[in-house]
Amino acid sequence: MIIVTRKGVTDAEIDHIREKVEALGLRTHLSRGEYRTVIGCVGDEEKLDRLPLLSIPGVEEVHPVMKPYKLAAREFAAADTRIPLGSGELGGEEVFVVAGPCSVEGMEMLERTARAVRDAGARALRGGAYKPRTSPYSFDGLAEEGLRILSEVRERTGLPVVTEVMDTRQVDAVAAHADVLQIGARNMQNYNLLTEVGRLHRPVLLKRGMSATLREFLLAAEYVMKQGNTQVILCERGIRTFETATRNTLDISAVPVLKEQTHLPVIIDPSHATGHASLVPSMCYASVAAGCDGLIVEVHPHPETATSDGPQSLRPEDFAAMMKKLAEYSQVAGKKL
Amino acid sequence: MIIVTRKGVTDAEIDHIREKVEALGLRTHLSRGEYRTVIGCVGDEEKLDRLPLLSIPGVEEVHPVMKPYKLAAREFAAADTRIPLGSGELGGEEVFVVAGPCSVEGMEMLERTARAVRDAGARALRGGAYKPRTSPYSFDGLAEEGLRILSEVRERTGLPVVTEVMDTRQVDAVAAHADVLQIGARNMQNYNLLTEVGRLHRPVLLKRGMSATLREFLLAAEYVMKQGNTQVILCERGIRTFETATRNTLDISAVPVLKEQTHLPVIIDPSHATGHASLVPSMCYASVAAGCDGLIVEVHPHPETATSDGPQSLRPEDFAAMMKKLAEYSQVAGKKL
Amino acid sequence: MIIVTRKGVTDAEIDHIREKVEALGLRTHLSRGEYRTVIGCVGDEEKLDRLPLLSIPGVEEVHPVMKPYKLAAREFAAADTRIPLGSGELGGEEVFVVAGPCSVEGMEMLERTARAVRDAGARALRGGAYKPRTSPYSFDGLAEEGLRILSEVRERTGLPVVTEVMDTRQVDAVAAHADVLQIGARNMQNYNLLTEVGRLHRPVLLKRGMSATLREFLLAAEYVMKQGNTQVILCERGIRTFETATRNTLDISAVPVLKEQTHLPVIIDPSHATGHASLVPSMCYASVAAGCDGLIVEVHPHPETATSDGPQSLRPEDFAAMMKKLAEYSQVAGKKL
Amino acid sequence: MIIVTRKGVTDAEIDHIREKVEALGLRTHLSRGEYRTVIGCVGDEEKLDRLPLLSIPGVEEVHPVMKPYKLAAREFAAADTRIPLGSGELGGEEVFVVAGPCSVEGMEMLERTARAVRDAGARALRGGAYKPRTSPYSFDGLAEEGLRILSEVRERTGLPVVTEVMDTRQVDAVAAHADVLQIGARNMQNYNLLTEVGRLHRPVLLKRGMSATLREFLLAAEYVMKQGNTQVILCERGIRTFETATRNTLDISAVPVLKEQTHLPVIIDPSHATGHASLVPSMCYASVAAGCDGLIVEVHPHPETATSDGPQSLRPEDFAAMMKKLAEYSQVAGKKL
Repeated sequence: MIIVTRKGVTDAEIDHIREKVEALGLRTHLSRGEYRTVIGCVGDEEKLDRLPLLSIPGVEEVHPVMKPYKLAAREFAAADTRIPLGSGELGGEEVFVVAGPCSVEGMEMLERTARAVRDAGARALRGGAYKPRTSPYSFDGLAEEGLRILSEVRERTGLPVVTEVMDTRQVDAVAAHADVLQIGARNMQNYNLLTEVGRLHRPVLLKRGMSATLREFLLAAEYVMKQGNTQVILCERGIRTFETATRNTLDISAVPVLKEQTHLPVIIDPSHATGHASLVPSMCYASVAAGCDGLIVEVHPHPETATSDGPQSLRPEDFAAMMKKLAEYSQVAGKKL
Repeated sequence: MIIVTRKGVTDAEIDHIREKVEALGLRTHLSRGEYRTVIGCVGDEEKLDRLPLLSIPGVEEVHPVMKPYKLAAREFAAADTRIPLGSGELGGEEVFVVAGPCSVEGMEMLERTARAVRDAGARALRGGAYKPRTSPYSFDGLAEEGLRILSEVRERTGLPVVTEVMDTRQVDAVAAHADVLQIGARNMQNYNLLTEVGRLHRPVLLKRGMSATLREFLLAAEYVMKQGNTQVILCERGIRTFETATRNTLDISAVPVLKEQTHLPVIIDPSHATGHASLVPSMCYASVAAGCDGLIVEVHPHPETATSDGPQSLRPEDFAAMMKKLAEYSQVAGKKL
Repeated sequence: MIIVTRKGVTDAEIDHIREKVEALGLRTHLSRGEYRTVIGCVGDEEKLDRLPLLSIPGVEEVHPVMKPYKLAAREFAAADTRIPLGSGELGGEEVFVVAGPCSVEGMEMLERTARAVRDAGARALRGGAYKPRTSPYSFDGLAEEGLRILSEVRERTGLPVVTEVMDTRQVDAVAAHADVLQIGARNMQNYNLLTEVGRLHRPVLLKRGMSATLREFLLAAEYVMKQGNTQVILCERGIRTFETATRNTLDISAVPVLKEQTHLPVIIDPSHATGHASLVPSMCYASVAAGCDGLIVEVHPHPETATSDGPQSLRPEDFAAMMKKLAEYSQVAGKKL
Repeated sequence: MIIVTRKGVTDAEIDHIREKVEALGLRTHLSRGEYRTVIGCVGDEEKLDRLPLLSIPGVEEVHPVMKPYKLAAREFAAADTRIPLGSGELGGEEVFVVAGPCSVEGMEMLERTARAVRDAGARALRGGAYKPRTSPYSFDGLAEEGLRILSEVRERTGLPVVTEVMDTRQVDAVAAHADVLQIGARNMQNYNLLTEVGRLHRPVLLKRGMSATLREFLLAAEYVMKQGNTQVILCERGIRTFETATRNTLDISAVPVLKEQTHLPVIIDPSHATGHASLVPSMCYASVAAGCDGLIVEVHPHPETATSDGPQSLRPEDFAAMMKKLAEYSQVAGKKL
């Protein structure tokens, strides 16, 4: 931690600041400049967290030196985290593709979609049973019936299932049916939910909040990991900006930044990021070229009748065509598809 | 709902769109332009919600005409919603001020703060027992002990208590101790939590999400109201922008916009919005001048030792000075303090 | 300047960094931590500007300690800057109100508007002769004819004139007619234009760029001041965010932040910030309560026929009503109107 | 244009609105709903531009149906615009790469860089002679000497030259030396400058403003094209968001959106977008996979001593390695490099 003092700080104030810091077991170093004095604090920076440094008279700025997350940080792991899932592995040598409808609408449509995406190369099935909807008047999912349909389709197709959990009270029920629990963007900072899924031995797909910095995103992952569950998959799904041509703005540079800062796998959701099916294939290609570990893509047999997010869903035939091209990009990226 | 078609749309496509819409019981009107055709849909617009219009061939844009919220809309209520609370009333002729520490740290500090803010004119006490913290390593509140302390201090001071609920499983416990349940910014789109507090007969203080539009904010209120609880207090607390001089950017124009669009009371949290105690008084004055119904302000007897958000907390004496000036502004605004 | 090194930095790298810094005449202090080493640089920080510190091996972060602007900084001036203008003074004991139409449309409408706003208490007249328009097909002002009309209306009404200059080649012509040269939001970082108006002895009204931080805003003012022209008026006019209910988001907390950081006067443009005439009065009141030195407000005798920005223009009678109330708020704020 | 009226609009108000619109030669169609009435306006929408519709009593919302730009719109051109440049062509079958230092620092460094990037496959040389800098105390370029050096290096290497013009008064001088005139992000809405370069017969590289929507970006291109110069290259260079891990947020989905909406070539600047050399290669690959027509990349022989933007500059050897991999991605994208 580096403390920068106010112009005109007094010696008494500097002494007071140092005492406060040293009382916590850290050492301090002074750099006196012409206008400001800098106090470097050496030791366990975490201990300073409870000290409201900016409230101490004379303090003007505080710059942390340590990263605030630990378990998620690249420097604290020997190697990339790999998560085996069905017949594939997330975080390793392949581009792992999850596909399926936004919402589970029924057995027939889900099974048909699952077979189609599996045959095109998808390794897991997505589908929402509990759907967070901006309006209370929108369709919000089939709930437990949706979970049972997902389970049944997994049996029939062999595809592991990814589905969202929205409430701490649903965690057990969802975990009974799902292979991967998804935490949606709106719940990225629902700390009780993060803590609850952290107690499971089941991978967690954590979506970045709509206006979360990457630092906050990694801290949310840290919440899960702190409970003992280290199988966290980070998912960039677009951030909120002023641009309205797309539903959100896909932050593609989050991929290399996260790959530098963490050992966790990073995937992209181009469907929610763009909101338009016509933009999804090119964003899939770009994501793989940027170095992501996987994709989660919305596919619906009849987007025209989808109960949610039709406009951003690919038809199965378009998904298959996209996967073909994606295989070529994956190869250049040094990965299998 | 207004549907704008693609350039070069065919007659068959237009017919198909009209059939889809009319099958739901609405009527359609055509306006054929040189390049595009516009289809006006008249009737119960809500029914169109389940139809993914943008996925129907030929459709280029869709513009809703009805507001998506109903119970929260000004046009659906005869008068402003007024919420009696302790010896005051929120949404009526007074500027209602809630004040207190960010976190409940102990009985002594809370009672002292409560007495100080009450004597300065605050009508309710704030204090967090459950604290959402960006880092899992930060202090996250005294939990149930904190709730008991709040209850006890209410007994001793007569001030009604506002405190945050973060988890559906906490709702009953918090409701047993609090007069107003606060939903934090991070949980504004935690729909299960909104639904759960909607079932209570207790006012809800709903904070605007960090990147929520006012439309989404009102839809979140609608979630609560749809369950039967119409006592929702809207709280603007700053939105996330590129500016870093303040913790968030206080969207002061949200006050008159919300007052035009809804009958619910609107209050401001200048402490979280700015993050700096020195900016809080001027933002309190501005909020009242902008027409808000109340304020929620952080006050701590020793910001230097606060377990959370010290830098944005006013000392009791600064709060009292602010309240004095605020009374003058309230009078010009035609309100009592 | 504080330099934070990479985890695992070598002694040779640290020596290399120190040599680079010391070669520029600064001294360095080391704070060795468990993971990272911090190098404090003491001396003329400005000299480090040309050294791309982040490119030197081993450097991970760089934190400047000095503010990058000088002439604009509060600490470099003894008192607030006051700018006499017509019969009033900007930056002193009054709330200085500039009002008038978005564009100069003709002599008759301008004179009528000028008389109306003057009688209601405005101290200066605004009106665009050169108009920056998003579309090349929109009305872009009467150019030199507009300037002549402004001059003539000043003669007839005694109101000093504020008008925008968009091009370095227009500076002399605009300066020949205007009392204050306005730099629009789109040109806040048009450095050649800033330099050119910096050579004049004429106040400059500098609008904050749509996505400019306050630091960048003050650096833009510094460009003008560096040429010798210290009469810079800072104008907050809303920043670009995700919210669409208002044209821009008025950053009201910019007022107290700027008042802390600079001695220059700060005014607010509520018309461009909100885009809706119905929101303008409450934002005027809030701005004064927040501590601003003045306002610039759009007024048009017939908003329905305005060539630009009609929806955000007040009618003269609404402006007069607003000014009455504003006088009351100004009094509470300790200022005259 | 579609006009939505206020709830409770009167017949007289509707008649008044229709008269206003019809007076401009358009026809109107009414759709009366239960709550609101919709007025479709058919005819030359552009004529409505001068009518401040939102100021007419009874009008609540206005939705344009036509795109506001014409010459830039895909529907107004038969084919993609191709711009021949040196030995290559921008907008056609190759990925066109421009590379070079941020600033021209001298003959020797520029020639060396030019030879290196040319040998690695770049088709044009970039280098700033006039540099827009946030601080007036930063190095702002060699000006005319820089232009002469660029010219000379073009002679020696055969590479066409791209360089920025910041001021209408510089246009002729820059055009005398440059093959492509660059308009920087800060000047994207400097309409006088756009108009001035629109009068030349020389390609213009137009950078997207930091907070410009794609609609505004295309309108800026329209300014240039309206003067007769249709050789506009659109350059996405990152937009301003709340994220601070990167200098800006690269809006990669702008590539497919622009390719849908315009016939102009689209290139990416990954150096300014990210601000970190380590992120540049992956963003180059992603951009090509997303379908861009080219790249503009900063390369410096010694980033450690660069006068500007060292941290985001690739070393020549890193650039060459990136280009090798990029050739593979280009092939998958169906393009040559």
